Amino acid sequence: MQIRHEGHIATPLGFYTDGLHAGLKRFKKDIGLIYSDVPAQTAAVYTQNYFKGAPITVTQASLATSSLTQALIVNSGNANTCTGKKGIADAYAMRAATAAKLQLPVDYVTVASTGVIGVPLNLPRVLDGIAQLDETQSNGHGFQEAILTTDKAVKSVCVTIELDGQTVTVAGVAKGSGMINPNMATLLGFITTDAAIEGVYLDKLLRQTIERSFNQITIDGDTSTNDMVLVMANGRAGNDILCANHPQILQFKAALMYVCEQLSKKVAADGEGATKLIEVNVTGALQQTDARLIAKKVVGSNLVKAAFFGEDGNWGRIIDAIGYAGVPINPDTVDIAISGVTVLKNSEPVIIDEARDLTPVLKAHDITIAVELHLGNEAGTAWGCDLSYEYVKINAAYRT
Amino acid sequence: MQIRHEGHIATPLGFYTDGLHAGLKRFKKDIGLIYSDVPAQTAAVYTQNYFKGAPITVTQASLATSSLTQALIVNSGNANTCTGKKGIADAYAMRAATAAKLQLPVDYVTVASTGVIGVPLNLPRVLDGIAQLDETQSNGHGFQEAILTTDKAVKSVCVTIELDGQTVTVAGVAKGSGMINPNMATLLGFITTDAAIEGVYLDKLLRQTIERSFNQITIDGDTSTNDMVLVMANGRAGNDILCANHPQILQFKAALMYVCEQLSKKVAADGEGATKLIEVNVTGALQQTDARLIAKKVVGSNLVKAAFFGEDGNWGRIIDAIGYAGVPINPDTVDIAISGVTVLKNSEPVIIDEARDLTPVLKAHDITIAVELHLGNEAGTAWGCDLSYEYVKINAAYRT
Repeated sequence: MQIRHEGHIATPLGFYTDGLHAGLKRFKKDIGLIYSDVPAQTAAVYTQNYFKGAPITVTQASLATSSLTQALIVNSGNANTCTGKKGIADAYAMRAATAAKLQLPVDYVTVASTGVIGVPLNLPRVLDGIAQLDETQSNGHGFQEAILTTDKAVKSVCVTIELDGQTVTVAGVAKGSGMINPNMATLLGFITTDAAIEGVYLDKLLRQTIERSFNQITIDGDTSTNDMVLVMANGRAGNDILCANHPQILQFKAALMYVCEQLSKKVAADGEGATKLIEVNVTGALQQTDARLIAKKVVGSNLVKAAFFGEDGNWGRIIDAIGYAGVPINPDTVDIAISGVTVLKNSEPVIIDEARDLTPVLKAHDITIAVELHLGNEAGTAWGCDLSYEYVKINAAYRT
Repeated sequence: MQIRHEGHIATPLGFYTDGLHAGLKRFKKDIGLIYSDVPAQTAAVYTQNYFKGAPITVTQASLATSSLTQALIVNSGNANTCTGKKGIADAYAMRAATAAKLQLPVDYVTVASTGVIGVPLNLPRVLDGIAQLDETQSNGHGFQEAILTTDKAVKSVCVTIELDGQTVTVAGVAKGSGMINPNMATLLGFITTDAAIEGVYLDKLLRQTIERSFNQITIDGDTSTNDMVLVMANGRAGNDILCANHPQILQFKAALMYVCEQLSKKVAADGEGATKLIEVNVTGALQQTDARLIAKKVVGSNLVKAAFFGEDGNWGRIIDAIGYAGVPINPDTVDIAISGVTVLKNSEPVIIDEARDLTPVLKAHDITIAVELHLGNEAGTAWGCDLSYEYVKINAAYRT
């Protein structure tokens, strides 16, 4: 697997993207398009929130007909959620306008939105924006900007692998937390690849990968109404169609996992108000799901997050979160290390000189917490960020 | 039911309390005693955290022998948790010293601790403190202070009811979040009553009451290792023994519920860094447990909490938390009112003048969020506080 630093969402063969300012936000780009010049196998996962944004309803409808799509239309600045029947009609109108522009069947188009909840969409501006989007652009940058809100950086990854003698590219882009009108940390992730892959298998693979990547990050524990991760695979690379029995399937799995994991870490590191990226690795669990749950509880604990903002290696809070994760553990056999410094062994404190041993590693931007349960052989990882004054400031501010 | 503003934990007949400075904290009182001059039916509930403080092990051992006790010994300033075999031995030593001093069987004594995790207890100071405690004091104040840490106020409630022609007193005291060495928001609650009541029934009643009071508050979602609520009922009021068939049982239930609910609200209002008390009432649910879960998710959401700190009626965040609570709801039938101002009706925004209608109620200290699901007839309430800069400051500070 080769990491392509110069690559982006429009690097896989046959993918084109654009983004521009339609007027939903004051100045920044707020509408984006991904277009594949041939039909692409498409799979998507959505928020588990019972309140789902109108675009999710429309995307689900498109993918219910068949797993083939050729375009994604996305806007930022308005989530189009809790907007009643008009909201659903607006999302269908976005799909119809995009399909007409690109001369595609309507169910070859998917829709995503992120932004403020409960405010009707300014549909004329959106339709005007769709009309102006250029489906022949292939630099990727406009699209990457159009999905951002107050994210401090573009979150993009691109890798290539060789399959059946062909170069296959897998690229992804995500937006994380932080909005001009902060409402919630909507996560949107879009992955393009020119791999040829079976549709049902792509769906399965996406779900497996998401469980260990996007679903393992938390900024504040609040699951948005508009979360969506979507992958389009258009087969333009010319490899033999990927399925469970393909001899090089592990390479593709690894590439997809790498893209999702890197995007997840970028989202966590750019969480609202974040000053640190925190990674929690849980080992020695009876089941992978146990390990992932504990890792996520630790990285999601306000007390743990605030401690690391204060550069305090307060492992009592880590122990506490492990204990309330809801997974049976043995409270006498837990080891904890913070960025390589063991602070707890068999659930008893290790005598260290905090100022000498621990303080230096706590000053780093990246913090790793290793938890060994000594129960079994399964492992899991989660990512998050610290809890800062800035987080409170961003989210206590008025929407206007 | 009469509210007794002058009453306290030592007001029920036959109860005596004391508290003093043993030297675990720098200056403040840190050891306390509740003593009943006759054996009291005793019930307790403990943290669900897999890591339990050593005192919980000892209290469970005392109550495993019989449900009768006569004394509770409690220290603040050290949680005696993750302190290995020495920690367990220390907690047993606290019990033994208290029993010897009061000439009681050891299993007539229960033990509680709150404070920093993973630091060995200074047992000589604790034993010295126990020796100095005065079991003839009945003003309640020393004890109430001894369990506090950085709590800004004593949390105490006292009520009386008439049962079988006798005055029965129910009193309670609690400590909440905030410590000199902030580690977690340990909750301790102690309730005394001179009611005569069957032991097994008292246990059942405590569990029922806790589900709708203490278990419905959250400051930061972190369940401590040392949480404990304990009730002692010594029968000195002379009423007929309370059981499920007692003709006035509803009065006693109401008194116990009132005491627990008031203590819960006091703990929530005094959460670390809190500037507001937030109450969430969910109605129209299919089950009480559903309503309670949704209420607790809303009041526990960082985004909701930060919004109210900023006096922003950002109901999109309330909707979001309702939707991810894990309880099936109908996303088209939800009403939301904030302190009496309806902002959402059948899941669609109500047009209001925010500055005129909403801003004034958001400036109040007490905020009430009413959520009507329109699914059934069950209800539930939860209490919490806002998320402020001060919360981050308290919890980002070094332990020393």
